[in-house]
Amino acid sequence: MQLDTTIAAIATAPGMGAIAVIRMSGSNAIAIADKIFRSKSPKKKLENQKPYTIHFGEIADGDKVYDEVLISLFRAPRSYTGENMVEISCHGSQFIQQQILELLVRQGAQMAQPGEFTLRAFLNGKMDLSQAEAVADLIASSSEAGRRIAMMQMRGGFSDLLRQLRDKLLTLTSLIELELDFSDEDVEFANREQLNQLVNQMHSHVSKLAESFSLGNVLKQGIPVAIAGKPNVGKSTLLNTLLKEERAIVSDIAGTTRDTIEDTINIGGITFRFVDTAGLRETEDYVESLGIERAKTKISQADIVMLLLDPTELVRRLEEQVSNIKVTLTPQQRLLVLINKADMLSEEAITTLEQQLTKAHPLLEMLPISARIHINIDKLTHLLLEYGKQRITESDDVVITNLRHYQALSESVKALEDVKAGLALNLPNDLLAFHLRDVLRHIGEITGEFTNDEVLGNIFKNFCIGK
Amino acid sequence: MQLDTTIAAIATAPGMGAIAVIRMSGSNAIAIADKIFRSKSPKKKLENQKPYTIHFGEIADGDKVYDEVLISLFRAPRSYTGENMVEISCHGSQFIQQQILELLVRQGAQMAQPGEFTLRAFLNGKMDLSQAEAVADLIASSSEAGRRIAMMQMRGGFSDLLRQLRDKLLTLTSLIELELDFSDEDVEFANREQLNQLVNQMHSHVSKLAESFSLGNVLKQGIPVAIAGKPNVGKSTLLNTLLKEERAIVSDIAGTTRDTIEDTINIGGITFRFVDTAGLRETEDYVESLGIERAKTKISQADIVMLLLDPTELVRRLEEQVSNIKVTLTPQQRLLVLINKADMLSEEAITTLEQQLTKAHPLLEMLPISARIHINIDKLTHLLLEYGKQRITESDDVVITNLRHYQALSESVKALEDVKAGLALNLPNDLLAFHLRDVLRHIGEITGEFTNDEVLGNIFKNFCIGK
Repeated sequence: MQLDTTIAAIATAPGMGAIAVIRMSGSNAIAIADKIFRSKSPKKKLENQKPYTIHFGEIADGDKVYDEVLISLFRAPRSYTGENMVEISCHGSQFIQQQILELLVRQGAQMAQPGEFTLRAFLNGKMDLSQAEAVADLIASSSEAGRRIAMMQMRGGFSDLLRQLRDKLLTLTSLIELELDFSDEDVEFANREQLNQLVNQMHSHVSKLAESFSLGNVLKQGIPVAIAGKPNVGKSTLLNTLLKEERAIVSDIAGTTRDTIEDTINIGGITFRFVDTAGLRETEDYVESLGIERAKTKISQADIVMLLLDPTELVRRLEEQVSNIKVTLTPQQRLLVLINKADMLSEEAITTLEQQLTKAHPLLEMLPISARIHINIDKLTHLLLEYGKQRITESDDVVITNLRHYQALSESVKALEDVKAGLALNLPNDLLAFHLRDVLRHIGEITGEFTNDEVLGNIFKNFCIGK
Repeated sequence: MQLDTTIAAIATAPGMGAIAVIRMSGSNAIAIADKIFRSKSPKKKLENQKPYTIHFGEIADGDKVYDEVLISLFRAPRSYTGENMVEISCHGSQFIQQQILELLVRQGAQMAQPGEFTLRAFLNGKMDLSQAEAVADLIASSSEAGRRIAMMQMRGGFSDLLRQLRDKLLTLTSLIELELDFSDEDVEFANREQLNQLVNQMHSHVSKLAESFSLGNVLKQGIPVAIAGKPNVGKSTLLNTLLKEERAIVSDIAGTTRDTIEDTINIGGITFRFVDTAGLRETEDYVESLGIERAKTKISQADIVMLLLDPTELVRRLEEQVSNIKVTLTPQQRLLVLINKADMLSEEAITTLEQQLTKAHPLLEMLPISARIHINIDKLTHLLLEYGKQRITESDDVVITNLRHYQALSESVKALEDVKAGLALNLPNDLLAFHLRDVLRHIGEITGEFTNDEVLGNIFKNFCIGK
């Protein structure tokens, strides 16, 4: 983290394109560019040009003209990194890109590390840490939901308010610590009423953010779906039908990697992710009963649970299965009961079965299907899509998608609860201050007021070079 | 070729990068950008901004914010295409790139065809046709020589002078055609002396350009090398040694495609291309004697001919082989005589052999090698590199690399010779004018004064989209 160096990197995707952009940031960026840039008439030095301007000319070293380029000029602090910046837009030959980058290095720039431009933006106070992380999420986003959440976070969607609340808490905490110096005199600098209010406000806000993590993750990685049901009821056939036959065959061949395969399908732009489908496909008997722990865990991770029933069983046994699974579900989880093998039943039989199940479990969503001969599969995917859309539109609120944030928020919630308990118990100031500092630290970890090289290293190593 | 439309395309390499650039060109480019761009404070319309400026803001459609971007603004005629242009520098997610491009299309832009930006630059008179072609060469360039030649051509390296000469000839031709109208009066508007001079000047210039094609091609595609020698002398072993063993084995396995494989090696950054090595490797007996036509053709295409001799043959037979091949070579071609199987001879034997060959053929370059056990192979590659460097440095002059240009130049040379002959024979004006028009047409084909949709289509279809 030597901020006095000037860094350079190719910022556009690797490979050949019409144009490519090489960016440079640091106090010497403009001076280095001036060494190798010759403007077309009139002759001019970039050093003397206004920021936010574009200049046409050639990149040259002595007699050797490398390329004709456009140079975009930015000056500290009004740039992405907060430093002087130069962007060179050259012809998109990989050879030329590499040559120009090497020339910049020969003239004194250093090759940028992954994410180093954004790291500098953070260190120079252009964005907080959660915003910096959102930049990488934005670049990696491949769906509308992923893009929107990353954008929101990059624009300070949740960290702005957190920072404001933290600042207020910092002031009050400092006042409480000041009281410690005057402990003999029993003065009260920090308004306890105000502190109480603020801590409650923060607790409710931070809890809500932490809870949004499950939704955030859903939007980022796909909506988790579990297929439950007794052995041999046709779970793997249904999955294969949903994944379309050919894909399932390919997965079967690639048996060695199946443990890590997560099957996803994309319906109408929304991704659905099948929880633990690898195991499910490998052996039909892993869910020996809905009561076993492992199946419960899998089901608890799902947003949508599809319970597959075999209509040839006794209705009492079917009702039991529905009851068993309903017990394990939270109100946020959606249950879909699928009556499989519908091709083997008369319509009358299906209706009777549906009525009997509804009697025991009102409001049950049911669909007769045949995974084998594709009855009602399009209705099923339509239901999945409808539910996915509901989930997506729920997310107009700020949501958390980053595990690091979730962990810090969870720790903040705990610390805030300690503070609340302390206030209720009239805990001594030194113990109260200890818990308050805990809150400040955990929230500060999210926005980057509290950080260290290891944390930064972990965050930025996953960036692309040039960002 | 509807110049009244506004076109848009992703201009950077496909895939994910830190940033990506989407460009738009046409009379509505700025107006379309204004519909979807919101500048950060202060609010402003791009329409009211100066050209060559950069603007930070967001791409949005109603409530939906797509991304935070930088917009670069160019105004006709001072832009690449000569039209209004907008470049949007966005986050490099493929999803975001695609979304913004689709938004531009919804707002009235059309997806650009391959090379359409450069086609417009040509049609708007920003560059001539040979310069436009050089843009594609520059983007595709993957070596120093390729880059330099493309740059030179893009900057009007050879077409500027051609255009000037053509303009002069056009004036004189028009004057001669004017004389036709006054043919009864025997007037002479066009100065014959001047015409003679100009035609001679053009003939010498155009011939030189046409001749440079072989060098240009060498620099673009690699220096052609032929390995000659009698059957079983070890040609394929030498080639395999040069290509390194492993590569040759791979090629052997891929036997079905071998007819189209051209073997190239890169020594010190210079590419050497082995002429017809596929055939050479497939069967040892294709050069049954150096006299057969096919071998001659292959050898005539090479810049460097390596004649491989078997020292166990009679010296008289070896001398014959050298004589035979020397007859077929032009002064520009370089001959290297390799005495193979050096591992089976004493040093004395080699020296004696070299002396005897030199007696018959002074200044012969000779090297004893063993292709089998790698004797002097590094000396051989060093010699190739030295020769390659000479070839490259020869090319400070303008060189032609484009077959289309070469053909037009060759036709121009023929037409100029017809004009010269006509002037010498005092040909009637109408016949002279006919030949002059021929010259004008062929030269105009290079620079694009003479063209048609089919020619343009062929040229630009090989461009990337976004250029």
